[in-house]
Amino acid sequence: MNKDSVILGVDPGFSVTGYSILKQDSSKVYLIDCGYLKMKSTDSLSKRVGIFFNFFQAKINTLSVTQVSLETSFLGRNAQTFLKLGFLRGILYLLADQHNLELREFAPREIKSAVTGFGGASKDQVANMVLRMFPKLAQIGKIERSDVSDALAIGICGIWQSNNILHKLNNK
Amino acid sequence: MNKDSVILGVDPGFSVTGYSILKQDSSKVYLIDCGYLKMKSTDSLSKRVGIFFNFFQAKINTLSVTQVSLETSFLGRNAQTFLKLGFLRGILYLLADQHNLELREFAPREIKSAVTGFGGASKDQVANMVLRMFPKLAQIGKIERSDVSDALAIGICGIWQSNNILHKLNNK
Repeated sequence: MNKDSVILGVDPGFSVTGYSILKQDSSKVYLIDCGYLKMKSTDSLSKRVGIFFNFFQAKINTLSVTQVSLETSFLGRNAQTFLKLGFLRGILYLLADQHNLELREFAPREIKSAVTGFGGASKDQVANMVLRMFPKLAQIGKIERSDVSDALAIGICGIWQSNNILHKLNNK
Repeated sequence: MNKDSVILGVDPGFSVTGYSILKQDSSKVYLIDCGYLKMKSTDSLSKRVGIFFNFFQAKINTLSVTQVSLETSFLGRNAQTFLKLGFLRGILYLLADQHNLELREFAPREIKSAVTGFGGASKDQVANMVLRMFPKLAQIGKIERSDVSDALAIGICGIWQSNNILHKLNNK
């Protein structure tokens, strides 16, 4: 991982999308941005896809993002919701291609393990750990906080995994 | 529907994507382009998403597309394939937003019915009917032909449905 790695972690959703932007400078990790994008259900699907694209394109440009981190999604109860999540993930894949970013997906267990050290951690345990690492998160409204803490966990996993790979390469 | 409606019908896929571009000038329908986009499985997902975006952005610009027509997709045997199809569909939703195009999805039954007059028609019946309407299709290689004929059926449904709506509006 380069000294200037800037990781965008995203937890996409058509109503609320949580995101985090973490920067790694030698051995330190800084939180440079986090929050959420809320979209109106009254807007057409294509309009929301466009808003999502513009929002993250602007973040990537302004904050010089170098890497995108996503959680691998699995089929839930609603297949159409699952397919539509694919729309938003596809937009992130497109942005990765257009801006020459590395895009990595992580399994839920890897993300939990990166944050808490335990792959079987509960959602609350992950959120509490993230809150402890980034106390400023407490300022965000409760409802959206879980979207943001999930996105932070995804971003932390991106950094942790990259460091791990680098560590292995250095020890070869 | 305007006199200058140009409909892009797409049958997306990560290996082969069939497409058709039909133009409606008063009561006549012209086939102005059809074919397929083949992508290499050795390319990364984000690269293929980028190729897909660039390909259809160029088609939309060059041929002044005004409308996009898609078949509603349903969950098949493989959930991850289904999710990845969502990536490509999301790109078409984005292009619809960026180029101010109307995007409409049709159920398989509607598409079959638009082409053959019967919602329960077989894939072969649809393909034969499309081949009869557009004999030039026979020049395309057999393997890719079904992707192209599907995309043509999707485009025909887009035109047929729009005319139907206009017909209803005129008779109000």
